[in-house]
This record gives sequence, C-alpha cells and structure tokens, in this order.
Amino acid sequence: MSNEVNPTVRRANVVGLGLIGGSIARALHDRGWHVTGSDEDEAIAADAVARSFTDAVGTDPDAEITFVAVPVLAGVDAVKAALHDTNGIVTDVGSVKAPICAAITDPRFVGGHPMAGSERDGLDGADPELFNSAIWVLTPDDDADDLVFTDLTAIITSLGSEVVAIDPARHDEVVAVVSHVPHLTAASLMGVAADRSIQHAAMLRLAAGGFRDMTRVASGRPDIWLDICTENRSAIVAALTHLIDELGQVRSAIDDGDQERLLDRLSRARTARQNLPSRVVDPESLAEVRIPIPDRMGAAAEVFTLAAELSVNIANFEVVHVAESNRGIAVVLVDLTHAEVFRGGLIARGFRPSVQALT
Amino acid sequence: MSNEVNPTVRRANVVGLGLIGGSIARALHDRGWHVTGSDEDEAIAADAVARSFTDAVGTDPDAEITFVAVPVLAGVDAVKAALHDTNGIVTDVGSVKAPICAAITDPRFVGGHPMAGSERDGLDGADPELFNSAIWVLTPDDDADDLVFTDLTAIITSLGSEVVAIDPARHDEVVAVVSHVPHLTAASLMGVAADRSIQHAAMLRLAAGGFRDMTRVASGRPDIWLDICTENRSAIVAALTHLIDELGQVRSAIDDGDQERLLDRLSRARTARQNLPSRVVDPESLAEVRIPIPDRMGAAAEVFTLAAELSVNIANFEVVHVAESNRGIAVVLVDLTHAEVFRGGLIARGFRPSVQALT
Repeated sequence: MSNEVNPTVRRANVVGLGLIGGSIARALHDRGWHVTGSDEDEAIAADAVARSFTDAVGTDPDAEITFVAVPVLAGVDAVKAALHDTNGIVTDVGSVKAPICAAITDPRFVGGHPMAGSERDGLDGADPELFNSAIWVLTPDDDADDLVFTDLTAIITSLGSEVVAIDPARHDEVVAVVSHVPHLTAASLMGVAADRSIQHAAMLRLAAGGFRDMTRVASGRPDIWLDICTENRSAIVAALTHLIDELGQVRSAIDDGDQERLLDRLSRARTARQNLPSRVVDPESLAEVRIPIPDRMGAAAEVFTLAAELSVNIANFEVVHVAESNRGIAVVLVDLTHAEVFRGGLIARGFRPSVQALT
Repeated sequence: MSNEVNPTVRRANVVGLGLIGGSIARALHDRGWHVTGSDEDEAIAADAVARSFTDAVGTDPDAEITFVAVPVLAGVDAVKAALHDTNGIVTDVGSVKAPICAAITDPRFVGGHPMAGSERDGLDGADPELFNSAIWVLTPDDDADDLVFTDLTAIITSLGSEVVAIDPARHDEVVAVVSHVPHLTAASLMGVAADRSIQHAAMLRLAAGGFRDMTRVASGRPDIWLDICTENRSAIVAALTHLIDELGQVRSAIDDGDQERLLDRLSRARTARQNLPSRVVDPESLAEVRIPIPDRMGAAAEVFTLAAELSVNIANFEVVHVAESNRGIAVVLVDLTHAEVFRGGLIARGFRPSVQALT
C-alpha cells in the first residue's frame, strides 16, 4: 500500500538511519512526505517503519530527494548509489565536505552539513525538531544546477533550518575551528581531569557547570570522530596548531605575570563571544533583493555563497521564473542593515540586483 | 529600626555585593536572616537595601557570620577586617584558597569557594537560588575550630549547597584543572575563531550549539581572571602544560593517521565524562555514620576532608554534643555504598566510627 505512488505526496529517501538520518526522516514524515529509509542494519530500517518514522524500507526510485546520512568515509559510495538509483536531488550530511564534493561531479548532487547534534545516538535520539533554528550548510560546486540548489534550499528551509552556502574547502576549514577542534579540546580537558583525578579524588566532584558544559560533547561516540579526523586532517591539524600556540601564549603571559597581555587576550575573546551572531531575524527590518539570474551554471548558489562571505543573513530565498524565459529572478530577503553591502558585492560579481525595503 | 538586635533573628554580614555576595545576601535574607551588606561602592550597598536584598549598610558587630565576597587579591585584608570587627565566624568565597588560608590563622576563619556562577555580573545577577544543588568547597586548616567548621557547614547546607572539604593547596590544583584552565581554553578557542573569522566571514555564523556551550564562560568579566591567574599561577601553568601536551599528542595522532591512539584518547574521555559524579543522592540508600570527635582541633574538618579524599558523598553532617562532656559525636549521612570505605578510612585515621543503614 504505502509503496504505491500518490502523485500529490512528495517522496524522499533517507539512507542511513542514525541520529541525523532518523531525525530527517521524522521531520519529513511529520510534514507529510512519503519517506523510504534504508540502513546497513536492516533491523534498524524495519524498526524505523514500525515506529512510523518512515513509510517503507529500501530505495524509492521516484523520490525527488535522497538524503545520504552515513558515516563520513562511506559517503561517496552511498551518494553514487543514490544518483544511480534515482533521478532526483541527492545531498549528504557529512561533517567534511571537500573530499565528497570533489569526488561527485553530478549536477544533481549538492553537499550539505546540518550543524545540529545531540548527545543521543541512533534512532532513539531521532528528533524531528533537531534542525529547527539550526544552520544547515550547503556546499555547492561551480557545477551545481540552479534548480537543484534552490529546490534543496527550499526543502531544508521547510525543516526550520537556515541555509548558509559556502565553498566545500572553506567549510572544512571553518568546522575544523568551530566544531572539530572544540570537540578534541573537550576530550583533552576531560582527559587531563581524569588523569589528575587519580591523585585528587575530589577532582571530578568539583567539576561544576562550566566544566560540564565544556566537556559535554566529549560524551559523544568516538568512532565518528576517527573518520572526521581522517577526512579533515590538514584543517584540523592547522587549527589545533593555532589553538596550542594560543594556549602557549596564555601560559607564558601567566608565567611572566604579564597582566596586560593576558587582559588583552581575555577581553578580545569576551568581545568576540558577546558578538556571536544571533540567529534571530527581526521581520520588521527586512529588505527584498531581486537578482536576475544569468543563464549559467551555479549562479543561484553563487548568490548564496556571496551572502555568507559578506556575513549577510538570508531570511528567505526563492527563484521566480519569468514567463517565456529560461532565466529566473532570485528573490532574497535579507536584514535591512545588510542590504547595501550585499548589493555592492553582487554588482562586483556581475549581478544586477535591485533592493527594496519591506515596511 | 532594622539595626536593633532581635535575639531570635540570626545576623550576617556580606562584604562585597557582586554576583556572589549579592546572591548570598539574598539567599540569607530570604531565609529570615538579618543581613548587613557593604561594598567598596557605597551606592551598591545602598541599592542592595533599596532592593530588599539586605537589611542594612555597614558592618554588624553582632553578626554570627561574615561572608567576604571581594575580588581575590582584596580577600586577606577584608577577612582580617571582619575578624577585627566581629566575634563571629568569617569565611570567604575566593576562587584561590592556599594564599588566603596561609595568611589567616585565626580559628574563626575557614576559607570557602562556592562552585557556582552565572554569565551575569553584579547585583543585577544576584540570585538566591544560585547555590542550590551546587558544590561549596570549604578548606579548613589544621587550626580550624570544630564548632566554627560545623556551624559554617550547617549554614551553607541551609542555602542548598553540598559541602566538600579539602586541603587549600589541593583545592587550588583541582580548580586549576576543572575551572581556571577550562576558562582560559574557552577564551583561547574563541580567540582562534575570531582570528580566523577575518578570512572566513561565515566562521562565527557556523558556530553551533557545542561551540556556544564551550565558549559561554569566555563572556565573563576578564578582570577577575587576572587576579585568579596571579594567585594560582603555578597550578594553572602546570595544568595548561598538561593540556597543551595532551592536545599535542592528539594532533600528532591525527597527523600520523594513528587511529588506535586517537580512539584510545577519545574513548577514555568519553568514559570519564559519562562517569562524572551525579549530585543526586537517593534518600532510600543512606547510612548513618556516628563518629565520636576527639578533643583536638580540626577533628570535625578532618572527617569531612577524609570523605572528599575517599569520594564519599556526605548527604548530611551534624555534631551532637554529649551531656556533661565537651566532646561531640559527628552524625554523618552517606551513601550506603560508600559506608564501608568511609569506615575503613576513619579507623585508619584513629576515629572510632559506628555505621547503621537507614531503611
């Protein structure tokens, strides 16, 4: 029954039903999609149907989109299989993007990475709200098809996430700093405390809120981090070197009693922390930027990528097609305060934007 | 009016009305104490009365306890003044304990350190529930008076905190690892991300939940950390060296592609994180340990300190005085599963405990 194609129901595949895949499946299912799920472990795929997280087991050739949510090192093969088995969009959710984006050149594929996680593993942790208010990175290549990119963006936005598009290699350098190295640092802090707790039994009892917050991520599954460290080795090593150098400078400032140098570093960190961008967009202060999309591959993705480079927050993005033309117009909502810098960047890249405040 | 001594009302001083002092004042005031507050900034002391956090401004010579909650480097002078101006117990809340405990030998003083904090500063952040379920470390010297120690423990317990007693120098080594170095690491991580954000505008937008959790403490006031780094310099430098070494080993394991070594470190950290002691005591499984307290200084504090060394969770502690004797009996409630190791340690230290399960 559930495998019969109902043309009014949108169809998706989810390959790999761990925490992320399971959450995507539930989020789509809750929004009325017909979701077909598969997993290396067939019992998990069956369990997902039994729990009504998915509608069927296997691969749906008619799916308009396939989310590949397998371990990082298995990603390329799984994406290739999905491109072979379906005619729809294929995306993945791996934490490292340059290798897979270099390996797959099919214009139906755009790499992705939802910046969301949980301390829980597997289907038990699957949460349809996991992506709500999260950043979901897409890493379109130059060969990304405009329609694929905009459709994928619309589907991800419908899950509650904000799409940020950046170059795959740049993504990997960024997540090395804001995700991979912090994780390794949390594990290292926990390791130091555990080492010291042998001499100081009270060590771990005194670990208060701040320490618990800082080391929470260290309770995640270690095996997924092995793959990440293999795939993103050079960016992680570079960021670790940067952090070790920074800690060495803090240590020497303390050892030398150089209060001014220490205050300078702490104050800079405080300012940066307080200025971490908020995700809240004030709907009262949006501008609409309309950008005719030239007839070349990747132009829509380029608009998105430029926004990220300029720190322009995109509140909404859609491509409107002009009657009797193959060309489209990207209609982008951004913070009013970001409109001018965005306009300047777009003109510099050869686009011809027009800006109108929404009031 | 409010300065007239009513013998049925307990009286306290709070010196320094920042986040911690203000929270102590409110917690005591809410529990019916008459609280007299002072601050270097007289307007703050007046404001505390206006907000009904305290009852009076100044120093109450009849206070049974004075909490000194001033910046770390000002602690010794403020404690000496409080010992001079009152006849009651004096304690402090500084994050570094060895220097102040070495400087003050009066048996009416016991050093303390509530392991609680908040992102907010000053009276505006003062929260009477700040200490609820927190660990509050006391660092009694060999010269600590038993009655002072047990009265202080009872007052702190009444604020909802769990008292853990450890040696001052040991405290400083422990907090270097679980508090001071994590703070400096959070600031360093934030600094690295801020440095890199100059090349990668998307850097800070991609900073998701884990990074925000890890760097939250870096938004605190930098100046208090200068004092802490001065006072606890050697323990902090040692712990930073340990962390830098650990990060260097992680980096070389990644650089060498040595998955086994990396997995070993991550797994060890995960296990330690998952085994962080829980603060929850099951009242169904307590044992009562009764310990006659010998007639020597510091015996009650020694019972407490031994419990921390043995990782024995003390759910309740009081000293019962035996009629027609100056000697007391410490009645200590501990986890039933900890009763035997505690009994063994007490006997080894020359105490004569008796244990009874509470069922």
